[in-house]
This record gives sequence, structure tokens and C-alpha cells, in this order.
Amino acid sequence: MSGAGRLFGVGVGPGDPELLTVKAARLLRAAPVVAWFAGSGRAGLARHIAEGYLAPDAEEIRFTYPYTTEVPKRSPAYRDAMASFYDDSSERIAAVLDGGRDVALLCEGDPLFYGSFMYVNDRLAERYETEIVPGVTAMAACWSRAGAPMTRGDDSLCVLAGTLDEEALSARLKSADAAVVMKVGRHLPKIRRALDRAGLLDRAIYVERGSTPEERIERLADMADGAAPYFSLVLVPTGRVAS
Amino acid sequence: MSGAGRLFGVGVGPGDPELLTVKAARLLRAAPVVAWFAGSGRAGLARHIAEGYLAPDAEEIRFTYPYTTEVPKRSPAYRDAMASFYDDSSERIAAVLDGGRDVALLCEGDPLFYGSFMYVNDRLAERYETEIVPGVTAMAACWSRAGAPMTRGDDSLCVLAGTLDEEALSARLKSADAAVVMKVGRHLPKIRRALDRAGLLDRAIYVERGSTPEERIERLADMADGAAPYFSLVLVPTGRVAS
Repeated sequence: MSGAGRLFGVGVGPGDPELLTVKAARLLRAAPVVAWFAGSGRAGLARHIAEGYLAPDAEEIRFTYPYTTEVPKRSPAYRDAMASFYDDSSERIAAVLDGGRDVALLCEGDPLFYGSFMYVNDRLAERYETEIVPGVTAMAACWSRAGAPMTRGDDSLCVLAGTLDEEALSARLKSADAAVVMKVGRHLPKIRRALDRAGLLDRAIYVERGSTPEERIERLADMADGAAPYFSLVLVPTGRVAS
Repeated sequence: MSGAGRLFGVGVGPGDPELLTVKAARLLRAAPVVAWFAGSGRAGLARHIAEGYLAPDAEEIRFTYPYTTEVPKRSPAYRDAMASFYDDSSERIAAVLDGGRDVALLCEGDPLFYGSFMYVNDRLAERYETEIVPGVTAMAACWSRAGAPMTRGDDSLCVLAGTLDEEALSARLKSADAAVVMKVGRHLPKIRRALDRAGLLDRAIYVERGSTPEERIERLADMADGAAPYFSLVLVPTGRVAS
């Protein structure tokens, strides 16, 4: 659309505000309108990371996720609620773009890697000029902080959701040279069992809130069993010996 | 060692100098000594990316890879040559650190994700204070430029080396929700066959030198068969339909 604003999907990295890219910093300083997603009752990690980079007069649009823990994630009700939430959010952004102003949508980590930005991109990328700025992922921040060499030479890396069942997790872990398990939370005890079955528990490293002041890094085998917070993951670095 | 310099493994991102992190930029400006790896006869992508960030009086150390195309990569001769190359490079860095100066070792993409930095880290991280700065990976830059939503919800992502044989590649591609094939080069025709066998050729996107002025993005199915340059990869975005 001629005269319309541009949509920027801006990866703001894993948590440490210095792990934003120079490009993201430049775009955020120049953005007249900044939008972001956050859970109900939460400040929103992406907004927190971007704090020092926003223009003082930037207009802010917060989109609060509609879901509550009462709705199972695989239910049609959940899917419908999320679809209409993304429809509404996208139309609100579209209205700003139609008015000729650019919008920077903040994304934790990288926009196209498990990010909510994708659902806005699905709805708007063909209608408006869209640019996506990649970001440092949470997993890269975590393995850097842990000092864990992840993949060497011809290694494969498998990134898995901790929501998979134990059987599937264990089988996939077995077939990978290195792995990252995301979306840990209450699934941690099951993830531990799957790693143990795959013979990988000794190599597993638990990282919570990597690159932030609340960071915690431990060998999973040394930890007490139990749930973990949302911003945590498990790394299984390569078993390949250094040359 | 008291009074020794610190080793920084600095991810400089995928190619566009603006995709360095703010932290990497700050560390490079302050680094008295900057080291980097490059192939014989090449300028070195990491050094090229860092060009605008180095202090004018920074001392530079270039490590030129010893290998030539005459030595097969799996041969003991190749492994021995690389091991002694990394021994020598590490000792040269150690000598600077012993003299009390910090060294920033430049790494394309992310230091612990297929990076040469790992081999220096193996040798020096326990002897010297070491900090690793994660970077935007080539794959994230490529999928951002292609506008390809990679992983949604519970998707898994499998990162594979194109050097694997066709059977192994095809089997692993089949089991992943989304995939990235790295180290493409002369393996591209085989990778294409493996994707075809896995029923994924239609989803595959070829990206060459993502985020640089020489970038090329094409549906793999539309390309003529043949080899590709080293800095290329193949993306298989999630097949999951947007909600």
C-alpha cells in the first residue's frame, strides 16, 4: 500500500539488553510505534529488554495474551481464542501502518523461532512492507553462559519441545548428536526420564533465565527433581571429543 | 592466573555488520588484541564483519587454516594437522593473555555453534578467564531474510550437516518438523535428492550469503542442479498451518 508504514519484526535477544543487535537498537530508537506481547499480569520480557532503546515519545501497544491455565492448549477453544487474538492484534497494527507510521513489534530471542511475531507475519507480511531482524536465541545465550561446545564438525543439533511425550523425546534425543529441549517448565521430570533412557542425563545442563541477573546453571543430574520456570531449557552438548 | 588477560569469544553474526550485538560492538572497540581465523588466500568473513568496530590501534592476529583440498577431512593427517594448528593458535593467544592483555577472538555467527572458537575454548577456558558472547546465527539471518516461519508451537527443528549420506539425511529430514541443512557446497545435489525422498523438496528454500549484499534466495525446487558456495544453506520451514 502506497504511503503505508512498514512492519519490523525485531528480535531483541535472550534477556541481557546488550545482546540486542546494533540494527535492532537503531530501529527501536527510530520507531514511532512499538508493540509487544505479554502474558496477563506480566511486564513482558521483550519490553523489559527493549527499555533503554525506545524513543521517549514512542507510542506503545501492549497485546495481552488471552489464555489462562484453565483452557488446555490443544483444545479447539484455545486455538480459536488465539486465532482471534492474533487477528485483532494484527488489525490494530494494520490500522497504524495504514496511517503511514512504522511499527516495531518486539520479539524475545528470534522472531521466526517459536515467536508470536510469526502469527502477525502470517496475517500482514503480504499486505505491508515487512522486515525481520534476527536475534540471538535463548539457546545460544544459554550455551554461551554454560561454556558448552554444542556442535562440532558434522554434528546434528535437534531442538525439541519438552511438551512431547517421554517416548518421543527419548527416541529423538537418541538420534541427535546434540540437543536442546525448550519449553521445560512442569515437563522437567519427564524430560529427565527421557534423557536418562537415551543415556544422555550425564551430559545434560539445565539453564534458567540465561544471560539475566537471575540466571541459574546446573548439571541436570545434580538437581532435585521438580518443575522449572517457563524461561528455562536443557542443553545436551555434543559428545564428540575435541581434536 | 593473576594479572592475566581475559579471552573473549565474540560472535559477530552472519554477515551484515549491523547484526553484531551491542555487547560484541562494545568489547571489540575496547579490545587491545583481536584474533581471527581465515582460509588461505581469503580475507575472512569474521574480520570483514568486524571492520568498523575495531579500535584503530588494535593489534591483529590472523590464523590461517592449514588445510588444503588435497587432504581428505576424515583422514588422520587432516585431524593431526588441525589439532596442531589449534594447539599453536591457542598458545599464541595464551602468550598475549600471559602478558596481561585481553584477546577478542572473532567468530562468524555464534562461537559454540560449529565455530572454530570451540577448539581454542577447549584448550584455554580452564587456564584463563573466558567469556563467550553469543551471536546471531547464519540460519536465523537466512530464515529472517526469506520470511520463513521456522518453528511454531511444539515443532522440533533439526540442524543437519549436508556432508551426511543421502540415506541418513533423508531419514532425519523425515522425522523433523522443520530443518536446516548446513555445509551445503558440493553436497547440494545429494541434499536435493534426500529432500525429495523425504517429501520435503516443495518446502525447501535455498539461501546463499544471507544478510550480505551478495544474498540469493530461491525455492530449491526451482533451481538448476549443481554445487553451491560454502556460505549457503537449505531451510525447511515448518509445515504446520498458521492458526
